[in-house]
Amino acid sequence: MTYMGLFDSERPLDLIAIGRVALDFNPLEMNCTLAESSTFKKYIGGSPANIVVGLSRLGKKAGFIGRVAADSFGDYAVDYFNNEGIDTSHLFRAENGEKMGLTFTEIKSPTESSILMYREGVADLALSPQDVDEEYICSAKAILISGTALCKSPSREAAIKALKLAKKNGVTVIFDIDFRDYIWKSLDEISVYYQTVAEQSDIVIGSREEFDLTGRIIGLDKEDDIIVARFWHDKGNKLVIIKHGKEGSVAYSADGARYLVKPFPVKLLKSFGGGDGYASALFYGLLEGWPLDRALEFGSAEAAMLVAAHSCSAAMPGVQTVTDFVESEKAKFGEMVFKLDD
Amino acid sequence: MTYMGLFDSERPLDLIAIGRVALDFNPLEMNCTLAESSTFKKYIGGSPANIVVGLSRLGKKAGFIGRVAADSFGDYAVDYFNNEGIDTSHLFRAENGEKMGLTFTEIKSPTESSILMYREGVADLALSPQDVDEEYICSAKAILISGTALCKSPSREAAIKALKLAKKNGVTVIFDIDFRDYIWKSLDEISVYYQTVAEQSDIVIGSREEFDLTGRIIGLDKEDDIIVARFWHDKGNKLVIIKHGKEGSVAYSADGARYLVKPFPVKLLKSFGGGDGYASALFYGLLEGWPLDRALEFGSAEAAMLVAAHSCSAAMPGVQTVTDFVESEKAKFGEMVFKLDD
Amino acid sequence: MTYMGLFDSERPLDLIAIGRVALDFNPLEMNCTLAESSTFKKYIGGSPANIVVGLSRLGKKAGFIGRVAADSFGDYAVDYFNNEGIDTSHLFRAENGEKMGLTFTEIKSPTESSILMYREGVADLALSPQDVDEEYICSAKAILISGTALCKSPSREAAIKALKLAKKNGVTVIFDIDFRDYIWKSLDEISVYYQTVAEQSDIVIGSREEFDLTGRIIGLDKEDDIIVARFWHDKGNKLVIIKHGKEGSVAYSADGARYLVKPFPVKLLKSFGGGDGYASALFYGLLEGWPLDRALEFGSAEAAMLVAAHSCSAAMPGVQTVTDFVESEKAKFGEMVFKLDD
Amino acid sequence: MTYMGLFDSERPLDLIAIGRVALDFNPLEMNCTLAESSTFKKYIGGSPANIVVGLSRLGKKAGFIGRVAADSFGDYAVDYFNNEGIDTSHLFRAENGEKMGLTFTEIKSPTESSILMYREGVADLALSPQDVDEEYICSAKAILISGTALCKSPSREAAIKALKLAKKNGVTVIFDIDFRDYIWKSLDEISVYYQTVAEQSDIVIGSREEFDLTGRIIGLDKEDDIIVARFWHDKGNKLVIIKHGKEGSVAYSADGARYLVKPFPVKLLKSFGGGDGYASALFYGLLEGWPLDRALEFGSAEAAMLVAAHSCSAAMPGVQTVTDFVESEKAKFGEMVFKLDD
Repeated sequence: MTYMGLFDSERPLDLIAIGRVALDFNPLEMNCTLAESSTFKKYIGGSPANIVVGLSRLGKKAGFIGRVAADSFGDYAVDYFNNEGIDTSHLFRAENGEKMGLTFTEIKSPTESSILMYREGVADLALSPQDVDEEYICSAKAILISGTALCKSPSREAAIKALKLAKKNGVTVIFDIDFRDYIWKSLDEISVYYQTVAEQSDIVIGSREEFDLTGRIIGLDKEDDIIVARFWHDKGNKLVIIKHGKEGSVAYSADGARYLVKPFPVKLLKSFGGGDGYASALFYGLLEGWPLDRALEFGSAEAAMLVAAHSCSAAMPGVQTVTDFVESEKAKFGEMVFKLDD
Repeated sequence: MTYMGLFDSERPLDLIAIGRVALDFNPLEMNCTLAESSTFKKYIGGSPANIVVGLSRLGKKAGFIGRVAADSFGDYAVDYFNNEGIDTSHLFRAENGEKMGLTFTEIKSPTESSILMYREGVADLALSPQDVDEEYICSAKAILISGTALCKSPSREAAIKALKLAKKNGVTVIFDIDFRDYIWKSLDEISVYYQTVAEQSDIVIGSREEFDLTGRIIGLDKEDDIIVARFWHDKGNKLVIIKHGKEGSVAYSADGARYLVKPFPVKLLKSFGGGDGYASALFYGLLEGWPLDRALEFGSAEAAMLVAAHSCSAAMPGVQTVTDFVESEKAKFGEMVFKLDD
Repeated sequence: MTYMGLFDSERPLDLIAIGRVALDFNPLEMNCTLAESSTFKKYIGGSPANIVVGLSRLGKKAGFIGRVAADSFGDYAVDYFNNEGIDTSHLFRAENGEKMGLTFTEIKSPTESSILMYREGVADLALSPQDVDEEYICSAKAILISGTALCKSPSREAAIKALKLAKKNGVTVIFDIDFRDYIWKSLDEISVYYQTVAEQSDIVIGSREEFDLTGRIIGLDKEDDIIVARFWHDKGNKLVIIKHGKEGSVAYSADGARYLVKPFPVKLLKSFGGGDGYASALFYGLLEGWPLDRALEFGSAEAAMLVAAHSCSAAMPGVQTVTDFVESEKAKFGEMVFKLDD
Repeated sequence: MTYMGLFDSERPLDLIAIGRVALDFNPLEMNCTLAESSTFKKYIGGSPANIVVGLSRLGKKAGFIGRVAADSFGDYAVDYFNNEGIDTSHLFRAENGEKMGLTFTEIKSPTESSILMYREGVADLALSPQDVDEEYICSAKAILISGTALCKSPSREAAIKALKLAKKNGVTVIFDIDFRDYIWKSLDEISVYYQTVAEQSDIVIGSREEFDLTGRIIGLDKEDDIIVARFWHDKGNKLVIIKHGKEGSVAYSADGARYLVKPFPVKLLKSFGGGDGYASALFYGLLEGWPLDRALEFGSAEAAMLVAAHSCSAAMPGVQTVTDFVESEKAKFGEMVFKLDD
């Protein structure tokens, strides 16, 4: 049995992610400005893409609903997914010359990263509601909607259509808020669409800042975490995870249980990528039917492994590697997941 | 007491409409093509504008959240509303040169009308979420969202923000689907946004074709009226009204009652404007606390009066006139509202 | 023989205009604001459209390269031109829902007029270079390029293509600067495109303000009329006409002759339309081979007749009417055209 | 004395280029597809940028009118130009989030290269006419307009404004047609703007295909090279260079002299970059006052050096290196420049 009966074991795919596949260009020269970096290594990137790569490496069967460019970089994305064993039957090509989004990373120091994004006319936001079909949605235990997919039409409507079809058919909806300050036109717009999804999702995960953006127009940004979590529980979410950066995250289960998850104290190479590792391993655990605390621990471990790696996709580990990491780190530093009292 | 406790009598405004104010240019020469018509009379138009004019003529206190042009035609709209006693404190001016939408009507015969719309860069769709404030929403017993307001950003987000604030504060939400085939980019887009509102409204009103557009992506367009009505009841609507043109409409109350409303057999001058008269008088009745069937009869009467008039706004009648019309027509033609069995 | 050998008498069409056909809505109630006007009469409008109507009424064979809407208002424009005997073989329909431009006129007093224009997504600016063909250009003695056609792509490129084809084939190019403060993005943009045409035209006509806009980036706006005229003569223009509103205009011939043209002292009904009457009758005279001063006098007469009329197109007179007007007015007020000394 | 008196030796800057600065990302792994390449080296790119780098390396004083991104990649461009001694006083930052254009190169084999361009919302096309000032234009012996700058507003108008100011002030205008099949909307549009510049330039250089695009709407694409060259001479050009790929190019001087320039037979590394080397060294020679044939030989030598190098900018050589190359290659292969008979 799975956590709170979330996943229908009859469905062949474990998870379908909806949203962006992009390319990361990470500098080989680090600890300098992006202007100074002269050589770059290309990786698959984009939060939902990283998560399906992560899940696939952990042995889960993942799919993707998205659009990639009709060019060599789009070929790269499709080839990469195919090699990873991810189902690409619903990974379409953009039809009006849209390009893959690019992320150039500046790594000035392990804690000072910044990114330069190319997001004008990108293929992922060309995802159309026509690309979303009911049969495919029904083939998965869960869909994961990335908040970035909501930032612009027609990708926005495609994501909401997937939400409606998942609700109609009892497919679990995971909402990964994944805020990126691009393309959005106003704070109100963000709040309107994040709420539209969070009101109907089963699991919602994001940073406290992302929850503030979500609840802003109805005043939730002024409330304590516990009130915020309860609000989204009342709308039907079974699990609400609020992240607080280096302080760790708190998972609020609709059955009342709460867990504090502290980060494993690893050496950072860069300050991003952890969230996608966390999500991959957490959802893996939940899909395996693990108790929530064990799934959270597994997630936290993979998060730690990712911030110590050069990429966000290529570095995704297998189950044994994460398991070994959990054991060795706990031996050194003790427990990282704590049940909180009411 | 009001119908199903819908309206909070403590709130000062009866209804705030959200959406478009436009100008109608109706030809003085009728029964010819628009190319042949050479003289035109200008009126206030746009469904939600007509409805607040109608309600105001019936003695209700109405307000409007919208944008009009910063030009002489915008002046005309503001002046007109002020003269009608409609609250214009939230009727803003467009800031980037947007113009009033225009509707030129071709009246080839009483049953053959068509319209030529100017809807590029219109002021009403420049309504911004920033224009919607919680205090104003809270001052009304009900808000009416016109489906046209959903066809484009940022008006779309403004309307959804109003919806969220109304729900948060217990303000009744009326969704008038009011489909106009302009600007919308795809059938899926229409369905996504109509559903987003209809899932959270208290009253939803539209033609069968409009309900089909609403429920299309989840297959509701293939179901009988009674299934469709129950679906929206299950989402929380207290009243669902499905219109069938000359056949009349059926009102489905969430308490199980159903009424067939047949049109009064008047002589048509034009084939439009009836719906706005219907809505004005129906909502008047409901706000007055009338039984549903009496409110429906009043609505049907005002609908009949409007299709016999040259305009959709200037011709809106007062309470006594509608009351007299109901009496005299019923004397001639008998009852028009029929309770249906289960 | 014609004025400075400008027109090749072998070519069947007298003049092809390129640019906008629009609709004018003039109020029946005058001396009030546009907000107060409630009834409007529809006319064909747009400077180049008015000029071809004017020329056609004077017996010349005119054609038009342009786009009109694929709707009833577009039908009206095509029907109107056909009725006037204007060649509509190159009057195409817009293909992407573009509408006819509209001009609502406010006539507060005979000297205080203002206009409210609908120019978003208009059909005339959808004119494409593909619509301009060499054979048609070659069939005319002259083409008239309206400066408004230059304000936006692809109409801009269509007009410049017509210019290049006219130059290649010895067709006379008349540039009517016709500035409208719509759509243009910057003063520099205006100057760039006005110059591009004025550098290669044979006749250029405009107000002093329009000549200032034209020459601004090269500092011509700081020079006297006579320097300005010489500059454009040096670029190849045979005739430069600079208008000074109520003061009249001055015509600078490349052979050194200069004429002051004073307006006939008629009673104004509105403050616009005169320019199009002036152009029609002046070009008529030049096409007839009249001496420049006689053609100017004829133009000035028709200008006077137009500002006393309710429309800019429907009121265009025939040759006899203008001739009679010239005679009777001169009998009352004396000569209006004066040769200036060097 | 310089070639045909083209350059005014009193002016401090040798040449100002107008157009794009972009970034090239060239793969370190060659002879594979772009999808397979995983590591990329970043260089300054864009034809006019390469040419000013080339001229600067040859000891000439160059400037640039352009816009670069207001981000780290824009910093890189400004820093690079400053290090090369290029005047950056008129290299502005984009103000609306525009990014540097990117060119990813696929080098499948020495003769099979292709490029993947990011040109949506690029900084270089945000160049505004307001950025072009007369005093700066007057400070240069020549300006070089890259045809790419003409592909979109407002860069298009900025380039034409520079043209008008150069003509007014006797600054030599070089038109490098430099066609890139991006952003242009139609073949007619290309022809209209290329002609607008070529009609007023002093030197025009391009491939035969580029000259065909230029002259298409007036039928010049169907004429022999010699007719094409004469047409542009008649418009005022002193030098017309038509390139024929591996066959070499022919230079047509307005004084009647013609030279065939054959390429030096070097080993290719990639199939692009040669044109910018050619232009740099040719203009260097002309600015030095060399006879045309010597300047052409110098240009051809630098072209050969560039196609054998990994970049188009960083590999630009100094005078001695080119001189040595000319000597050693001619020793091996003989003369490459041939005077043609009439």
